[in-house]
Amino acid sequence: MAKIAERPDPSATMTDAAETRLDRMLEAATAAGLEAALITSDESIAYLTGFKPMQLERFFGVVVRPDRSAVIVPALDRGQIDGAPRRLDRISYGAESDGIPELAEALAGTRKIGVEEDHIIYARTSALEQNGFEIAPAGGLVMGLRVQKDAAEIERIRAACELVQEGLRRAFEWLTPGIVEQALNARVEAFLREQGATDAHPLILFGENAANPHGNPGPRELQPGDVVCADLSACLDGYWGDLTRCATVGPPSEWASQAWQVVFEAQQAANAAAQPGATGRDVDAAQRELIEAASDLGACLHGAGHAIGLSIHEPPFLVPRWTEPLAEQTVLTIEPGIYRAGLGGIRLEDDVVVRENGPEILSNLALEFTEVGG
Amino acid sequence: MAKIAERPDPSATMTDAAETRLDRMLEAATAAGLEAALITSDESIAYLTGFKPMQLERFFGVVVRPDRSAVIVPALDRGQIDGAPRRLDRISYGAESDGIPELAEALAGTRKIGVEEDHIIYARTSALEQNGFEIAPAGGLVMGLRVQKDAAEIERIRAACELVQEGLRRAFEWLTPGIVEQALNARVEAFLREQGATDAHPLILFGENAANPHGNPGPRELQPGDVVCADLSACLDGYWGDLTRCATVGPPSEWASQAWQVVFEAQQAANAAAQPGATGRDVDAAQRELIEAASDLGACLHGAGHAIGLSIHEPPFLVPRWTEPLAEQTVLTIEPGIYRAGLGGIRLEDDVVVRENGPEILSNLALEFTEVGG
Repeated sequence: MAKIAERPDPSATMTDAAETRLDRMLEAATAAGLEAALITSDESIAYLTGFKPMQLERFFGVVVRPDRSAVIVPALDRGQIDGAPRRLDRISYGAESDGIPELAEALAGTRKIGVEEDHIIYARTSALEQNGFEIAPAGGLVMGLRVQKDAAEIERIRAACELVQEGLRRAFEWLTPGIVEQALNARVEAFLREQGATDAHPLILFGENAANPHGNPGPRELQPGDVVCADLSACLDGYWGDLTRCATVGPPSEWASQAWQVVFEAQQAANAAAQPGATGRDVDAAQRELIEAASDLGACLHGAGHAIGLSIHEPPFLVPRWTEPLAEQTVLTIEPGIYRAGLGGIRLEDDVVVRENGPEILSNLALEFTEVGG
Repeated sequence: MAKIAERPDPSATMTDAAETRLDRMLEAATAAGLEAALITSDESIAYLTGFKPMQLERFFGVVVRPDRSAVIVPALDRGQIDGAPRRLDRISYGAESDGIPELAEALAGTRKIGVEEDHIIYARTSALEQNGFEIAPAGGLVMGLRVQKDAAEIERIRAACELVQEGLRRAFEWLTPGIVEQALNARVEAFLREQGATDAHPLILFGENAANPHGNPGPRELQPGDVVCADLSACLDGYWGDLTRCATVGPPSEWASQAWQVVFEAQQAANAAAQPGATGRDVDAAQRELIEAASDLGACLHGAGHAIGLSIHEPPFLVPRWTEPLAEQTVLTIEPGIYRAGLGGIRLEDDVVVRENGPEILSNLALEFTEVGG
């Protein structure tokens, strides 16, 4: 695995790609009858500018319009936008402003504005409406671009997966009875960050805690007989990888062996269903059928997964309500699981590229139920 | 410092407090002419229910209305709400829903709905409008309750500060020439999490990197002569602490000594200005005057700070545009700084309770410019 210092600075290639993406964003907005698009999420700003903002309560945005486009940031963050595409006007605002007057100025002369409706807050859309703008949902336009990853993006997700699988290897080495759940998660997170992750979410749960897919690591110690569900994600150079593997302390119980086998088969089925033209519902159904058929072993508590890239969770979502066809070069994280209160949970997860000639798995970590010393 | 296992489980007292807070929320909403309040931010949900959700793309909310109030969560997270106040109906929705039909049902019979306008996304307010509801901003109502901390909340912030100051002591011990900025931040974050922090943001920047208040830790090694600006925050049992101290490797330069002294005086002035009835603008002006008078040493890039509590950044903000008077028992993080490109930055930060009889500092870490071995 390349060390931090050995990896090339990614910002140069990001900015080149951003130029083309701005063209495509403008094209999509114009085709949708919008006079401007206002992009506000960290990840979409990163996609269109090559820089990922650190947003707190202050407004950040990119305005894309035919005549003049702009990036708007708090004065405090002006230093971050040096590498943004040159065509973008640089607008910053001081502590005396909330950024809305500067935004209204950047939008002046347009009326119908597309926004990322799943990101922009009501306070800002209502302020724009009060300034005479008409708001239209346009998150699908930018996600329509972001959903198909280019080769450089896929390589970054692969690199993030490589880091995550190294993290999983370490986590399983550190699994010895008596280790505290919270301490293990902290140690794995430190490892991922030391290796260059800018964000990392280990979720390694022991025994009955693993029965809650969104459980929190606590003061519980690892015990012989525990099932361990280890879900690790890390963001490297702007892109996420997300993998899950399971272990047992000592030989697996009858329940654990059977549950693992069901989830393994469900994951294989869902991976195989991730074909161009299939829907999120289809991929979900492939795993759901097998998990629900094993209801004596536990419950099916969530869908098959979701897309991944600049965001750790992005559309398409692999759930029953998602009926749009999958596009080639979408990267999905596929993660079926089965959960049994009091006993634990089993989940398996890999990141998969949707390809014409069949799904490509971006990790190469063995699919096995690891047994650690009891 | 109490170890994780020694601290009492905080959820019981949280739920008791939540009952009273729901009453006060309903009172505030009714007085504002609202038929219901819809609370959606993690922190306000925690304030009103005693449980802090883990929100991703799925909808979470609390509906407060005179006749029947409710908490709405994804089915996946149903386990989290067991401890919520009993008067709240428990509503959950499966993977086939986006939660809006269930929300509309919980609001049925009302029309004018108050929302947290700085949190709720446009997709959800426009869906509610399409369902015939009228949206009104009401974030100020819940923040009006949250701004005045009760004694138990202040003790939690104090405990978080105690953890952060222990983290700062360790960070300064680990400051030896050659240590990598990114690795040091990872190590400090691991320490904070091992001690029970559920979230932690160390931002320890070396030399010229410290000139950007929102810089990112990178592969740079610590060098003799560097100024180090160490800003650590951690969330413990739901409440944040946030402190900043500075160090130099070897004796401070003339610039560093002078800059530190100016920031020290600015911090003292801002702390002293944090009186009931003073405004955010007043507290900011107290530090800004001194920092701006020293413009030969560097720039004043941000306001004096902001309130802290369940959120790491919450109103009131200590900036020129904030002209509302401060309430007693508001907890502020006061953090003036001065920044000089190419040389570095100096910032000092403490968490301060606004009190009738004068500001109370929640940390007891010496205000000194630490010199580490060069």
